[in-house]
Amino acid sequence: MSKKIVVVQKLLDQELVERIIEKGEALGYQVEYYREVEEALPACADAEIIYGSNPALPKAAPVLKWYNAFSVGVDAYLKDQAFLNEDVILTNSAGAYGPSVSEHGLMTTLMVLRREWEYMQNVQRKTWRNDLMVGSIAGSYVTILGTGDIGTEYARKVRACGAAHITGINRSGRGAGEAYDETARVSDLDAYLPLTDILFMCLPGTSETNGILSEKRIGAMKKTAVIVNVGRGSAIDQKALIRALQEGRLMGAALDVFEKEPLPADDPAWQTPGLLVTTHTAGNLTAAITRKRNVDQFLENLEAYTRGLPMKHVVRKNLGY
Amino acid sequence: MSKKIVVVQKLLDQELVERIIEKGEALGYQVEYYREVEEALPACADAEIIYGSNPALPKAAPVLKWYNAFSVGVDAYLKDQAFLNEDVILTNSAGAYGPSVSEHGLMTTLMVLRREWEYMQNVQRKTWRNDLMVGSIAGSYVTILGTGDIGTEYARKVRACGAAHITGINRSGRGAGEAYDETARVSDLDAYLPLTDILFMCLPGTSETNGILSEKRIGAMKKTAVIVNVGRGSAIDQKALIRALQEGRLMGAALDVFEKEPLPADDPAWQTPGLLVTTHTAGNLTAAITRKRNVDQFLENLEAYTRGLPMKHVVRKNLGY
Repeated sequence: MSKKIVVVQKLLDQELVERIIEKGEALGYQVEYYREVEEALPACADAEIIYGSNPALPKAAPVLKWYNAFSVGVDAYLKDQAFLNEDVILTNSAGAYGPSVSEHGLMTTLMVLRREWEYMQNVQRKTWRNDLMVGSIAGSYVTILGTGDIGTEYARKVRACGAAHITGINRSGRGAGEAYDETARVSDLDAYLPLTDILFMCLPGTSETNGILSEKRIGAMKKTAVIVNVGRGSAIDQKALIRALQEGRLMGAALDVFEKEPLPADDPAWQTPGLLVTTHTAGNLTAAITRKRNVDQFLENLEAYTRGLPMKHVVRKNLGY
Repeated sequence: MSKKIVVVQKLLDQELVERIIEKGEALGYQVEYYREVEEALPACADAEIIYGSNPALPKAAPVLKWYNAFSVGVDAYLKDQAFLNEDVILTNSAGAYGPSVSEHGLMTTLMVLRREWEYMQNVQRKTWRNDLMVGSIAGSYVTILGTGDIGTEYARKVRACGAAHITGINRSGRGAGEAYDETARVSDLDAYLPLTDILFMCLPGTSETNGILSEKRIGAMKKTAVIVNVGRGSAIDQKALIRALQEGRLMGAALDVFEKEPLPADDPAWQTPGLLVTTHTAGNLTAAITRKRNVDQFLENLEAYTRGLPMKHVVRKNLGY
């Protein structure tokens, strides 16, 4: 039986599919490509490697050795106990989404600061006005919760916009690099929140990040502060955030992720003043640069896997990222 | 008769007004502050210096020696022959608006690339979707028409977003600095347009820039290109741009300035697919950082003027900027 790679992803460009097949075959694999999960499930039965985006795939793969997720977040796999064998190597696509998610984060930060949502409602009514008082990234104190590639790419961008000070916050407090003015540990978060003009959140969904931006912490922030979350909705007490916005205790917020997705029709988030809702559009594979990076990283890891070299973006299943 | 400075601007913070009065008095001036143009006109009769934003002010000032405009664009003053005396020094506030206008330009560039206008219409209908194909600044070829402080601040920002190549285009072709990969002269524009993914326009309104982005030049651009204009509406053949968008010959455009402002209610620009309209909100004095910079620059120039030293941001009236 020849070794098999199963690739499942409807958004992949033909050219990228061909690159995977070519490289896989050169390394001695049979490569099967499917657009839909349902079609791919039977092929998982004897797959050694799966490159996909649905927990049903590893569940259907008893001889699986390596699963590469198209996503960065793998909480759905772990929560669902998707791996039949403890030894399956799980890699994610951290790094592939940095450009798209940080560009989205930058855009929504600016949209909240510049009150673009209010302005666009004026434009829909053909109302010409330009006297709303707006904020700027220039001169702002920025706190970035999560110093992975998305946080770091965002830090570089707000630096170029003239941010006055950038603090990166992570689990260990280990220096996150020159994109930040300083790095602090998550247990020191409370000291930074009252200073923060812009809070950018890009945390993985784990038991430690669950509810990290609590009602109390939201209450400790400035009335002029802006919160942007592109990580996981579970990181924020969403009801408390909505209340703070309704009561004018924050300038605004931009959420791309929610406690429950899709956001239910009766959720007040849809119509909270000062809250910019985007429908989990920051990441996923809709930007060409993301698809290319995603495949580049998989092929680099495939080379490493085949040669027995250290692989990148291996998820520590106990930590969840 | 004591020397007099008249300051006219309703959006100025009390603290900034006090700084102007204090500095002016320290330099031997009487400073009069008015919120409204109408109230200020009688005081212009014996003003030596006016710091304002309306051509009616210098017209009412027969002994005026120096006019400092709150704006960068001074076309309205020159068109209106607002200066009674040829020798009046005219300075503008170039440099003060860089942070705000370039942040606006970055935001609207991203909104067009990421199809945020379409997404926001979905959000208004509470529709959860995230499958629209989007673009990115990362990997893009950016052409910046106008290499003053706004163009250069924009260049630094798109650089931090991973732009693949940045060309600055100006009148002389003189090197515009390290924010750009290359600088070209405006007569070479036609060579760059077919390569451009993002065209950022921040030109002053002069006879030379009038209609510079002609129908023919719009037609030379890629179908996937994006045009952003924060300079003057007169620089684009607006009807031709709208036709190109309606016919799907461009990915999109963001206009903050128009041939006629306010944009007339029956103008098709309000409802052209792919056209993000903002209502001249990029600049003006609504951002605190802009007001502070504006006043800082005026006070620095006031010091230079008083001491007979070279002043900054002096407008060459024949060129118009």
